[in-house]
Amino acid sequence: MGKALPSRAEDYSLWYNELVRKADLAEHSSVRGCMVIKPYGFSIWEKMQAQLDKMFKDTGHTNAYFPLFIPKSYLSKEADHVEGFAKECAVVTHYRLKNDPGGGGVVVDDDAKLEEELIVRPTSETVIWNSYKNWIQSYRDLPLLINQWANVVRWEMRTRLFLRTAEFLWQEGHTAHATKQEAIDETKQMLQVYTDFVQNYMALPVIQGVKTESERFAGAEDTYCIEALMQDGKALQAGTSHFLGQNFAKAFDVKFATKEGGLDHVWGTSWGVSTRLMGALIMAHSDDDGLVLPPFLAPIQVVIVPIFKNDEQLSQIQEKVDTIKTQLQAQNISVKFDHRDTHKPGWKFAEYELKGVPLRIAIGPKDLENGTLEIARRDTKEKKIYSFEEAIDQIPGLLDEIQKNIYQKAETFRAENTSEVDGYEEFKQVLDDKGGFIWAHWDGSAATEEKIKEETKATIRCMPLEFGEPGQCMVTGNPSKGRVLFAKAY
Amino acid sequence: MGKALPSRAEDYSLWYNELVRKADLAEHSSVRGCMVIKPYGFSIWEKMQAQLDKMFKDTGHTNAYFPLFIPKSYLSKEADHVEGFAKECAVVTHYRLKNDPGGGGVVVDDDAKLEEELIVRPTSETVIWNSYKNWIQSYRDLPLLINQWANVVRWEMRTRLFLRTAEFLWQEGHTAHATKQEAIDETKQMLQVYTDFVQNYMALPVIQGVKTESERFAGAEDTYCIEALMQDGKALQAGTSHFLGQNFAKAFDVKFATKEGGLDHVWGTSWGVSTRLMGALIMAHSDDDGLVLPPFLAPIQVVIVPIFKNDEQLSQIQEKVDTIKTQLQAQNISVKFDHRDTHKPGWKFAEYELKGVPLRIAIGPKDLENGTLEIARRDTKEKKIYSFEEAIDQIPGLLDEIQKNIYQKAETFRAENTSEVDGYEEFKQVLDDKGGFIWAHWDGSAATEEKIKEETKATIRCMPLEFGEPGQCMVTGNPSKGRVLFAKAY
Repeated sequence: MGKALPSRAEDYSLWYNELVRKADLAEHSSVRGCMVIKPYGFSIWEKMQAQLDKMFKDTGHTNAYFPLFIPKSYLSKEADHVEGFAKECAVVTHYRLKNDPGGGGVVVDDDAKLEEELIVRPTSETVIWNSYKNWIQSYRDLPLLINQWANVVRWEMRTRLFLRTAEFLWQEGHTAHATKQEAIDETKQMLQVYTDFVQNYMALPVIQGVKTESERFAGAEDTYCIEALMQDGKALQAGTSHFLGQNFAKAFDVKFATKEGGLDHVWGTSWGVSTRLMGALIMAHSDDDGLVLPPFLAPIQVVIVPIFKNDEQLSQIQEKVDTIKTQLQAQNISVKFDHRDTHKPGWKFAEYELKGVPLRIAIGPKDLENGTLEIARRDTKEKKIYSFEEAIDQIPGLLDEIQKNIYQKAETFRAENTSEVDGYEEFKQVLDDKGGFIWAHWDGSAATEEKIKEETKATIRCMPLEFGEPGQCMVTGNPSKGRVLFAKAY
Repeated sequence: MGKALPSRAEDYSLWYNELVRKADLAEHSSVRGCMVIKPYGFSIWEKMQAQLDKMFKDTGHTNAYFPLFIPKSYLSKEADHVEGFAKECAVVTHYRLKNDPGGGGVVVDDDAKLEEELIVRPTSETVIWNSYKNWIQSYRDLPLLINQWANVVRWEMRTRLFLRTAEFLWQEGHTAHATKQEAIDETKQMLQVYTDFVQNYMALPVIQGVKTESERFAGAEDTYCIEALMQDGKALQAGTSHFLGQNFAKAFDVKFATKEGGLDHVWGTSWGVSTRLMGALIMAHSDDDGLVLPPFLAPIQVVIVPIFKNDEQLSQIQEKVDTIKTQLQAQNISVKFDHRDTHKPGWKFAEYELKGVPLRIAIGPKDLENGTLEIARRDTKEKKIYSFEEAIDQIPGLLDEIQKNIYQKAETFRAENTSEVDGYEEFKQVLDDKGGFIWAHWDGSAATEEKIKEETKATIRCMPLEFGEPGQCMVTGNPSKGRVLFAKAY
């Protein structure tokens, strides 16, 4: 076939890379660290975007657009923020090229050096809060609930398609509030929106939690997150929602006249998910034959492949298919009829398996005679013969079933790969033998966290929103408030 | 009101700037040349995007995403292209900052100098054709019909919100074809898509044409364009569609195996519209009281303002409004009920006039008694009393009427401001006295074109797709194939 993938068991990492490439999702560009998101991959991302955008608007947010460039000095205004982001970034120093006097194409024009360098945004808190300063005078201007869909750049040295690239696409919400509680509520609300999206649309169960101080967003008071488990037992952070306190309001001097006649700094939040979710989607559900897409995010939900030997047969099939297509589309189901005569049905079957299309219909001359067709499910690989009427009737239900089944499968996998351990040796052993999520006690100190990370490569993915029973740290024996979630992570 | 605008007659340019600012459409950021598109402005742009995206998909295109950065050497590969674009651009030279040893915040880390500078894309032909090289092997891979929504940067020295900014948002279509004819057909098809969009959705009549060689896109064989007339008599280029010939295929060595067994370079097109269209929309229709939005692109189509003295009155109005709102929304009409008690009805009337909401409904206690409400049209300022039933019934038709009326008005204005002149003195006089579009004969030489531009600031906006009667150049008396369109332009 030329399309065969390495198996996950053989080489999970290679399997992922090959799948991304062969399913036409994305590829490395010749620009270091930057990816090209190919049409099929992008159409999945568009589905994600559309759903998320709807959820943001349903919770009262509007979109806006802020500059790509951030003056260097802005990054320095929030002390933690500059430590976290200013280091690895793309720096614009000049605004003109000129012909090389030596004839070697074009060169940077030294006369066009910027007075202050511009940073290509790694995240937009600074440039946005600099605008908010002018937008917020009074409590009547609050809350300010804004989201931006944008590209951002972080100069990553080791890149992987979707998971870690120098440039990536994301959305970043930036809100401003009159009270601390309102800002915390917003932070939690958006964590819940992300949870609903990832669980209900991406069919991927997640654990909600709070980051430890060392894993916190640079400039936040608290970083809430959702963590998902991939098939190789590694965790993936699927979204973060930050309570910023008054940090950016203080850094950019954003004050408002309160209802009571006072003057106070505004409370802020920011929250984001990125094309990284594409990586999560691919790694969580796919198998050795290719992608497995949850129907809600599948650009093509049903593909129809005709089995024919000549034009006459094809035109008879076409006639029937047109009716079926119309009836399915009337139910908002996206259908593709692949009647190309340049490829054999077997090739097409493999192709649409690779691309994760949830349902595949095959229909040939015999089927026409019998009034039947064959439906194959991508998730279970089951094939079944239906009459035309049954098919039309049952396809919506089948798609729902697939959506649920994919979620169930991921949830079962997670349950099987989640451990609770008490001792540090046991911790190391479980991590080596099995990986996955590990709930264990930790004494709350950064030193212990760092020691565990250095010795095992596992990090604290999050602390639960509410701690369970207290206990003793598996490393130091010191008191622990409750178990926290460990894993090796992407 | 604090919201009053200068009149167009007084100072058109100031009127535009103030309107953009006061209607919350956009503002200058503190980053030189970059704008912030504010929520209300962005919601109009989103409506434009959604409609254009639909039209692109209906004509067989899919979206993808290519890198923000272009290696400097790519720009040099197409000779004309580098002349047109490499000069004024943002150049990334470093990928890291470090703490200033002198304690002055962060500074560029000289150790992190890029081997080859990266250019922030001013347009993406080069980086996209570099990918197409690997995507196209055979005629079976063609046509390749891809669009990208993206931000681009051109280092403009004089900027104006929406009309000319260093960073702007746009879409760029990039297609590859097996034959010259197919590429030309695509170029013209997309010109027609733009024409349909601008005329039917933006309610703005345009003239289709072809650019002269000196106004052509750098790297194209032919640039097709649509030109619209603004209320100050200046032209605005609303969209361009380029037939690229085999230029980029040759520059990036993109060949394909033909059906006949040969090997040939691919034929290309590119086409784009940008946030500049926002400028056109604002300038074409708005009046001294603010924006006038065509209903198809209005984020709020109907605003309902209650007239009330106390909570009891408001709650009675609210009840009625809920019914009206539901009935209108069921007809896909977007409705806002502004029941804030922090602002008086008069203030709200002015606010929604400023923001261009097509229909405004006022409803007070007397109306409830009489079963009536008042509808005011933004375009004509007419007010009329309707019964509730009539209102529900007639609002969809009123919106259609406004859409048509705005177009008609713009078309009448254009007709009144289009002249046909034969002599160069007459040309100068018409240009000074009246401005607008001027059809005149030109000998086809770049020298004459340049002379006219230098002496009058008017440029050839386009040559018509089909020339009319031949004649004599108004400047040189040399033969002319037919009249071409002149105007001063944005």
